[in-house]
Amino acid sequence: MPPDFSTIAVRLAEIGRRFDARGWVLGTSGNFSVVVNREPLRLAITSSGISKGELTADGIVEIDRAAQVTFPGTGQPSAEARLHVEIVQARGAGAVLHTHSMWSTLLSDRHIAGRGLAVEGYEMLKGLQGVATHEHREWIPILENDQDMERLAGQVHAALIECRGAHAFLLRRHGMYTWGETLSQAVRHVEIVEFLLEAVARSERGGTTWP
Amino acid sequence: MPPDFSTIAVRLAEIGRRFDARGWVLGTSGNFSVVVNREPLRLAITSSGISKGELTADGIVEIDRAAQVTFPGTGQPSAEARLHVEIVQARGAGAVLHTHSMWSTLLSDRHIAGRGLAVEGYEMLKGLQGVATHEHREWIPILENDQDMERLAGQVHAALIECRGAHAFLLRRHGMYTWGETLSQAVRHVEIVEFLLEAVARSERGGTTWP
Amino acid sequence: MPPDFSTIAVRLAEIGRRFDARGWVLGTSGNFSVVVNREPLRLAITSSGISKGELTADGIVEIDRAAQVTFPGTGQPSAEARLHVEIVQARGAGAVLHTHSMWSTLLSDRHIAGRGLAVEGYEMLKGLQGVATHEHREWIPILENDQDMERLAGQVHAALIECRGAHAFLLRRHGMYTWGETLSQAVRHVEIVEFLLEAVARSERGGTTWP
Amino acid sequence: MPPDFSTIAVRLAEIGRRFDARGWVLGTSGNFSVVVNREPLRLAITSSGISKGELTADGIVEIDRAAQVTFPGTGQPSAEARLHVEIVQARGAGAVLHTHSMWSTLLSDRHIAGRGLAVEGYEMLKGLQGVATHEHREWIPILENDQDMERLAGQVHAALIECRGAHAFLLRRHGMYTWGETLSQAVRHVEIVEFLLEAVARSERGGTTWP
Repeated sequence: MPPDFSTIAVRLAEIGRRFDARGWVLGTSGNFSVVVNREPLRLAITSSGISKGELTADGIVEIDRAAQVTFPGTGQPSAEARLHVEIVQARGAGAVLHTHSMWSTLLSDRHIAGRGLAVEGYEMLKGLQGVATHEHREWIPILENDQDMERLAGQVHAALIECRGAHAFLLRRHGMYTWGETLSQAVRHVEIVEFLLEAVARSERGGTTWP
Repeated sequence: MPPDFSTIAVRLAEIGRRFDARGWVLGTSGNFSVVVNREPLRLAITSSGISKGELTADGIVEIDRAAQVTFPGTGQPSAEARLHVEIVQARGAGAVLHTHSMWSTLLSDRHIAGRGLAVEGYEMLKGLQGVATHEHREWIPILENDQDMERLAGQVHAALIECRGAHAFLLRRHGMYTWGETLSQAVRHVEIVEFLLEAVARSERGGTTWP
Repeated sequence: MPPDFSTIAVRLAEIGRRFDARGWVLGTSGNFSVVVNREPLRLAITSSGISKGELTADGIVEIDRAAQVTFPGTGQPSAEARLHVEIVQARGAGAVLHTHSMWSTLLSDRHIAGRGLAVEGYEMLKGLQGVATHEHREWIPILENDQDMERLAGQVHAALIECRGAHAFLLRRHGMYTWGETLSQAVRHVEIVEFLLEAVARSERGGTTWP
Repeated sequence: MPPDFSTIAVRLAEIGRRFDARGWVLGTSGNFSVVVNREPLRLAITSSGISKGELTADGIVEIDRAAQVTFPGTGQPSAEARLHVEIVQARGAGAVLHTHSMWSTLLSDRHIAGRGLAVEGYEMLKGLQGVATHEHREWIPILENDQDMERLAGQVHAALIECRGAHAFLLRRHGMYTWGETLSQAVRHVEIVEFLLEAVARSERGGTTWP
């Protein structure tokens, strides 16, 4: 039985409008997915080229472990569908959200040499699942952007294994990925990480300058 | 008789949506309280882990002087409930609001060495209760963040006694607390202080850089 | 016959919500007035301490040339009512709008030594009444802030006479005043001037730093 | 037969409200057009001096290849109507959108000496029609602003011929022009280009400072 896209679409559309208002999914950037079945794996994911502020059930397709569309027969999943599958499998996530904000774009470029950035000392870190103190040190991996999705999925897989504690990662000049056991938790992680990235960017170098 | 949470929730929800739109309560950050009884002290306070942009009566609990829930039997008050109680007792406030904005987070870190920052010469200062001229000098204390709420409450108590004139204080990398005789006054104080913090941050060091 | 405050309030409330959304009238800052009669002069002006995002007819009073309330018998006009009268008389304006934005606050402080700032070369200047080319040079006077309204009104009067071409002026760390033949024109001037101030602030010194 | 302005107005009004919320069409800046007939050429274009956040069918006129109003008999097209015609003819566009944002205004001034700026390495570039990889190098020409529309139209024509691959251009201190085969594509291009300009501005020089 196909998932109830209309119900999922209502929630994703709400999230899309919210993120759109903050400028995190301009153009047709960003993509969202929700696990609708574990075995066999089925994800409801936003279609390619859809404005996230205007999502409808027609803008969502179901894909399998290979990121192939299983429902409806037609439709094109987001180009990054493979990455969503990797995250779901490596983290057992129930939802994956990709935003394309200004600060994640800038920091992913600024810190590429270090292959990531550390965020430490902020109370907001407690908004990340399992973090109980602002003294937590969160490492956010940064991967080189790549149009070869198979290769990039491999890089994402490796990063998720290497950085077991990470709640999010960045793609260079391509924005941020985070996830959650539930869609609500994933939304919270987006807001927490976006806040932290802006705070780091504005503090370490003024958020506007670097060498 | 339990307080009319539905009425309080309607007002707090309105405030929550407003602050959320400005990015002052991202994730599930921020917490709000209103005094519903003085003797014995009873506060209606937002529950822990609630998105402030989507408050309902279910997201509010009543606590006593010890920050213990008195109504309903279940529910978890904000982790910082103790701080709200301290503020209400030290200032005789009728409402306490905690926001977690970008500028308060950045300034609380930048000025920690001085244990606070002075704001002077801004007309907006007149929006603070009892301030009649822009020539007023407002001292905003900054406290180290701490996960031990008893210890932190003690620090807050001491700061409120030491800085009798203060209308707000910051917790390092944890945002801002302000209050008012009424909820409306507390909302006004939030907007005034947030404006002043951004003005100070953008002027003294460009709001983006420091040593 | 008293002016139709309900009609005026509807328009001012719309403007208030719009400016509030942009962060130009935080707290209870900012004030708006509309000429309802020329001879004798009568202005409908926002009351003191009103949140501009929630204006109603009750938040408006009618004043005369001396800034005394003529209708209703009760009510307190904005503390800066005298300035509105000066502007209306010196410019024959039909509406006066005062915003209290971040950029006008910062620039009014940065350029106080020069007693104003010049804006030149921006296409947006053409939005100012009577300006036909981006090559126009607009001088925006800046006055020291003052709690003595009689004295400040005198300064405003002198500045409006001295700078005959000015479409707006700033009060140090107190925001911006502009006006128009009609309320619509005054609204347009607010948006034009606020845009120009941000552009100047961000360009000349990065909008964030100065000596 | 005249075009159905009411239908076009509904879509342009939606776009106007969206751009207005982002601060891209403050005052009465910005202008939008849609091709309603190819041979002979007819464009539906926003009238001069209209607030883009409050568009109605009355705020739109039809013009011909010479930018003369063909319907209704009265009404004044945007002063930049000639530029829209040039773009439609040089690119075969179905819609042209001009925004007047902060970042396009600042960058158009900063890079005038180079007569344009290059944007490269951003995933967001893929939102531009025909671009398949972030490794694409987009050149955005910048033209001196000019009140002589015939002369400026000639400059635009020359730039569009010279820079065949360009998806947008800037007018110095006057904002950005982009277009699309459809109105939806043009809207996407606005959001993509505005994002890229902010990213470039904030990265290359901190987005706030230059020599």
